[in-house]
Amino acid sequence: MADSPNCDLKSLSPLELFERVTEQGEKVRALKAGKAPKDEIDAAVRMLLSLKLSYKTATGQDYQAGLPPRDLALINNGTTKEEDEDFVDPWTVQTSNAKGVDYDKLIVRFGSSKIDTDLINRIERATGQKPHRFLRRGIFFSHRDMDQILDAYENKKSFYLYTGRGPSSQAMHVGHLIPFIFTKWLQEVFDVPLVIQLTDDEKYLWKDLTTEKAYEYAKENAKDIIACGFDVNKTFIFSDLDYLGTSTGFYKNIVKVQKHVTFNQVKGIFGFTDSDCIGKISFPAIQAAPSFSSSFPQIFNGKENIQCLIPCAIDQDPYFRMTRDVAPRIGQPKPALLHSVFFPALQGAQTKMSASDPNSSIFLTDTPKQIKTKINKHAFSGGRDTIEEHRKYGGNCDVDVSFMYLTFFLEDDDRLEQLKQAYTSGELLTGELKKVLIETLQPLIAAHQERRKQVTDETVKQFMTPRKLAFEF
Amino acid sequence: MADSPNCDLKSLSPLELFERVTEQGEKVRALKAGKAPKDEIDAAVRMLLSLKLSYKTATGQDYQAGLPPRDLALINNGTTKEEDEDFVDPWTVQTSNAKGVDYDKLIVRFGSSKIDTDLINRIERATGQKPHRFLRRGIFFSHRDMDQILDAYENKKSFYLYTGRGPSSQAMHVGHLIPFIFTKWLQEVFDVPLVIQLTDDEKYLWKDLTTEKAYEYAKENAKDIIACGFDVNKTFIFSDLDYLGTSTGFYKNIVKVQKHVTFNQVKGIFGFTDSDCIGKISFPAIQAAPSFSSSFPQIFNGKENIQCLIPCAIDQDPYFRMTRDVAPRIGQPKPALLHSVFFPALQGAQTKMSASDPNSSIFLTDTPKQIKTKINKHAFSGGRDTIEEHRKYGGNCDVDVSFMYLTFFLEDDDRLEQLKQAYTSGELLTGELKKVLIETLQPLIAAHQERRKQVTDETVKQFMTPRKLAFEF
Repeated sequence: MADSPNCDLKSLSPLELFERVTEQGEKVRALKAGKAPKDEIDAAVRMLLSLKLSYKTATGQDYQAGLPPRDLALINNGTTKEEDEDFVDPWTVQTSNAKGVDYDKLIVRFGSSKIDTDLINRIERATGQKPHRFLRRGIFFSHRDMDQILDAYENKKSFYLYTGRGPSSQAMHVGHLIPFIFTKWLQEVFDVPLVIQLTDDEKYLWKDLTTEKAYEYAKENAKDIIACGFDVNKTFIFSDLDYLGTSTGFYKNIVKVQKHVTFNQVKGIFGFTDSDCIGKISFPAIQAAPSFSSSFPQIFNGKENIQCLIPCAIDQDPYFRMTRDVAPRIGQPKPALLHSVFFPALQGAQTKMSASDPNSSIFLTDTPKQIKTKINKHAFSGGRDTIEEHRKYGGNCDVDVSFMYLTFFLEDDDRLEQLKQAYTSGELLTGELKKVLIETLQPLIAAHQERRKQVTDETVKQFMTPRKLAFEF
Repeated sequence: MADSPNCDLKSLSPLELFERVTEQGEKVRALKAGKAPKDEIDAAVRMLLSLKLSYKTATGQDYQAGLPPRDLALINNGTTKEEDEDFVDPWTVQTSNAKGVDYDKLIVRFGSSKIDTDLINRIERATGQKPHRFLRRGIFFSHRDMDQILDAYENKKSFYLYTGRGPSSQAMHVGHLIPFIFTKWLQEVFDVPLVIQLTDDEKYLWKDLTTEKAYEYAKENAKDIIACGFDVNKTFIFSDLDYLGTSTGFYKNIVKVQKHVTFNQVKGIFGFTDSDCIGKISFPAIQAAPSFSSSFPQIFNGKENIQCLIPCAIDQDPYFRMTRDVAPRIGQPKPALLHSVFFPALQGAQTKMSASDPNSSIFLTDTPKQIKTKINKHAFSGGRDTIEEHRKYGGNCDVDVSFMYLTFFLEDDDRLEQLKQAYTSGELLTGELKKVLIETLQPLIAAHQERRKQVTDETVKQFMTPRKLAFEF
């Protein structure tokens, strides 16, 4: 396997080059301070200049100490950092805009690609299926290398799906289902294996939880995930705390990623500090490793080169940017990605929801009455202050949370368009729009609860047992 | 299980307190910079002052930013840091003294205890066996909590032994055998289980090696270790790369340690920098975890409170100082330790040997002829320049490497004393002393090679299979 720490400079990412320049600069300073022989210092300086040149070639910018290429990306893309810019990382999503995060800007900043009509049409042709409403409505809006997945798929070369969840509590809300609903659709239309990571170790590290509790949450969350309708013959769900100790391949990939990522890099990508525990600092490798099929020898028969496609919310992209950076250096294919927007809180689209605030979203355990009360009481409205004004000026679907939720859950495109027209024109009142949402969600959640009841501990155990799936590799 | 991140300040180690003060200071600065409400800032400042007081109580010193308690230890112990002080960490051992490292100073700096005659006599009484020559001759010279091990042992409470090796190459030299020879003796006289960690992941992270190569070295090194005569029914040897993926307990302990150690701490203990890979930064937890019996559920039947005793060279102590710091915070007993001096290179006691320099020591694969040539050609002599001078003034056993090697390998105390007298008086010449060493090592190594030949791949597999050992827990 290719695993070369001394690889060619051209194969290095901007972050890696930044790192090398920084290291070489430190080396030169140390040599000078230690009064090393002149020829040794000269050689180190020459290397430093050559590294700086490679950096400039790769980024179009001069190397600046302390300014890693993450920040440079903003400059390169012609945008400047503004005080009120959206902030998105795996733990925090912040925007001052009631419509939510500006996703077009995020695509530019993250360097991903927009899922455009051409790509959606291509998915339709490749699968022979009508694209999922999440694609039709721009809920999955960004991607990395999805075209390559389709190229390969059209040439009968398969891939596998990888998604996940951090089990921070027993309670899951409807927003948590978005990646799973979409992943289920992808699995069905492409007919590929799926692995679902439950990062109970992450939750243990970040929260005030015991490992036992985190693992218990993982198993509880698995029930809600299974209730989305996954096929046990094609799906492997795993808890990190559990699977790491039962896989011959997982840790080997983790340690490979850990060898090729420095603290400087995770500091730049995730904002870690010197006061963070070493578990947090090394965790990104654990979320990276399932992107490589050799982490699942029992599924892929030890095969190392199976392409991976990751559907996830855009806030998880930093993990996979890092993974894609490392992949070629450990001889593995880069995972492809499909990114979703964030599911808005009932109170508005400025932030992600919190599983710890029961009123911030509709939970999968809510009764029909709770659903009704929460929507009526808490769902932020884009309607006007009085009925008269509303009739006259109309409502604003761009900031109305009930309408946003309907774009996620109402399958009928025509009906959604009618609602939009009627609400915008003032014909439909806020209370009426909320009623449509209530009537859409109540049966969906009741059905979910019904399916979840069928999921026994035994079923969970089946899904979580490492085993061969119904595919040949 | 006790696992409380918000534990009482009194239970925190000086390092932990240092950490808390630093964090709180950052918090205060952030609040002030962010123009937070006055009462919030005041509360944070009060907390900072209280933390500083706790720190002073624990260390006897004022908190100084950027000066962690490791450095304070020097001040507290009444010594000052000198330019020419010995440097000892797991990767570097440096001294300017031809007699080698000043171990008495190291005991003070590391805060361990000297193995004195009382303790040696107690071991003799407890086991009913003559103390091993490594104890009689101060080769194992320092300990932590060995008295507690004996207290418990005398009350019929057992413990287990844990030692290890970093398999950086196929070649092992006689110095590498020291911990294993002593551990074998401890296992026999106390009749306890033994786990031996082969840190192939560490070697992958630190060296230019593939994981496959590191694992191969681990298995090769296991053969030399097994050839020391360990009992397969009482000994479990494991490679990290292999065992991490087959143990339900190991990773859980690793992640617990990782949650309770910050980057600031490993920076202070191991000298890591921001340019180090996250694998190195998190590795100390992997060497820490085998100190807890729950890492070996198959051996200890899942029991968590079995006491651990670690025989190792003193340069490994930083790992276990860290482990002992963390243990109570994750509800585990602190491991006890027995520290050995370093085995000197043939060229002299200033440095540890290097497995990459074939002339720096006697290798376990050396032929009788190679042993003879190496000792005659490279063993640093404490003899005089001419025979006349030697006869007149005598040789210096304190710096003579042949004599040092004999203290490690010549069992007969009287003979060793005779040699010392004769060499010091000038009666015995350097060539004659070297001859004694050659004649001591040649049969020892030939016998080792003979035993190693008997160690088949199948035997290695047996030792490396997780299983119940011949003890009840």
